[in-house]
Amino acid sequence: MQNPNLMTIDLKPGERIDDLQRNGYHIIQDPARFCFGMDAVLLSGFAQATAGSRVLDLGTGTGIIPILMSAKTQAGHLYGLEIQEESADMAQRSVLLNHLENRITIVRGDIKEAGEQFDAASFNVITCNPPYMISQHGLQNPDSPKAIARHEVLCTLEDVVKASAKLLKPGGKLFLVHRPFRLAEIIVTLHDYRLEPKRMKMVHPFVDHEPTMVLIEAVRGGKSRMTVEKPLIIYESQGKYTQEIYDIYGY
Amino acid sequence: MQNPNLMTIDLKPGERIDDLQRNGYHIIQDPARFCFGMDAVLLSGFAQATAGSRVLDLGTGTGIIPILMSAKTQAGHLYGLEIQEESADMAQRSVLLNHLENRITIVRGDIKEAGEQFDAASFNVITCNPPYMISQHGLQNPDSPKAIARHEVLCTLEDVVKASAKLLKPGGKLFLVHRPFRLAEIIVTLHDYRLEPKRMKMVHPFVDHEPTMVLIEAVRGGKSRMTVEKPLIIYESQGKYTQEIYDIYGY
Repeated sequence: MQNPNLMTIDLKPGERIDDLQRNGYHIIQDPARFCFGMDAVLLSGFAQATAGSRVLDLGTGTGIIPILMSAKTQAGHLYGLEIQEESADMAQRSVLLNHLENRITIVRGDIKEAGEQFDAASFNVITCNPPYMISQHGLQNPDSPKAIARHEVLCTLEDVVKASAKLLKPGGKLFLVHRPFRLAEIIVTLHDYRLEPKRMKMVHPFVDHEPTMVLIEAVRGGKSRMTVEKPLIIYESQGKYTQEIYDIYGY
Repeated sequence: MQNPNLMTIDLKPGERIDDLQRNGYHIIQDPARFCFGMDAVLLSGFAQATAGSRVLDLGTGTGIIPILMSAKTQAGHLYGLEIQEESADMAQRSVLLNHLENRITIVRGDIKEAGEQFDAASFNVITCNPPYMISQHGLQNPDSPKAIARHEVLCTLEDVVKASAKLLKPGGKLFLVHRPFRLAEIIVTLHDYRLEPKRMKMVHPFVDHEPTMVLIEAVRGGKSRMTVEKPLIIYESQGKYTQEIYDIYGY
């Protein structure tokens, strides 16, 4: 379904509009900066938000997760926090492009100051697709959008968890996607901030491969007992997605 | 290969001798007490011990894990610690039955006092197949061997981790099998005692089922970075093991 108002949003040089194949929604991206990946799609498929809930996406980038969550859930209002001006601006234009300005608010700001930017204990749900890699000295372009999205240049895992612990209501849920090699650190950090890991799903490219992603749900103040779900397998054979991936794409 | 000396070991009422189908080894078990399960076999397949290493199995029961590890590895000497007199006695007779008395020593004792019973930092490898269930008030037969093997009646996860942290050499490895629902607690407890989780493998009955077991390797003083291996699937179809299970059984 083509959005009749697509043309009313100005694109900047290098930007393009991609069809999300969901609710007729589209997103503005700039391949030279960063394009959303399978991780954002899987996180929006793993995350849950009940009707009317207040949802925050930390480090929202182009706003892909709030846009997909707005399509998938009955969440009341969704906020996306983004530190990079150009990304926040793109996200804001994608919100307008999809006529979602009454449900999604893009806020420019730093995850490390999110605890002051929003009211404490005011969110039911927080989502985050954080940078996976521990920042290294000698990173070639530490200011580039890709480096900021992938490496812990501007925020660490602990920054995300600390902000979430402050902003979630008791019983509120944090949904994270991350890399399995950091699983022990993720679980320990969540536990330290009383965000108890309650649900986990490993994502494997093929059934006989190591997992490349892990999806985690943590509950503020939850008790220590978790469900490890059946693994999510991305490909049935080379280039052919499994039915579960099609189900998540299509919801 | 039948062991010519099988008949020289006395069996007590209810006991039987089972063929381990490995090195001609056998084990004495009493089905009314407890029989080893897939978890012990998988742990001995997951654990590693280099040539000449000193290995300790905490809560060894009938000695299944040291016996399988003695067949699988070049470990120097293997100790099995068991609190229950009848189980320790059965384990000791299985050691004699297999002529392993020069490699395996069964010691009767409490995991909670293992830190005093053995020299600190004296083991390269510790294995443990601990009770999985948190002890509950009102457990019908808390003194029964099955309750002791399955519920944390006589020792908790923390007791196992604490003893291991004291008894392992720096860089020494703890191999655990446990239930996924306790994964967060396991990782946090290991981390608290500076036994860093470094390798993990989920065990699923079928590829499209939740995992029922988790195998974990932790390294004393290791850095925070772990490998999550491809999942281990037990059954290819109802009643038919996967090739990987046959490989582990046969080593």
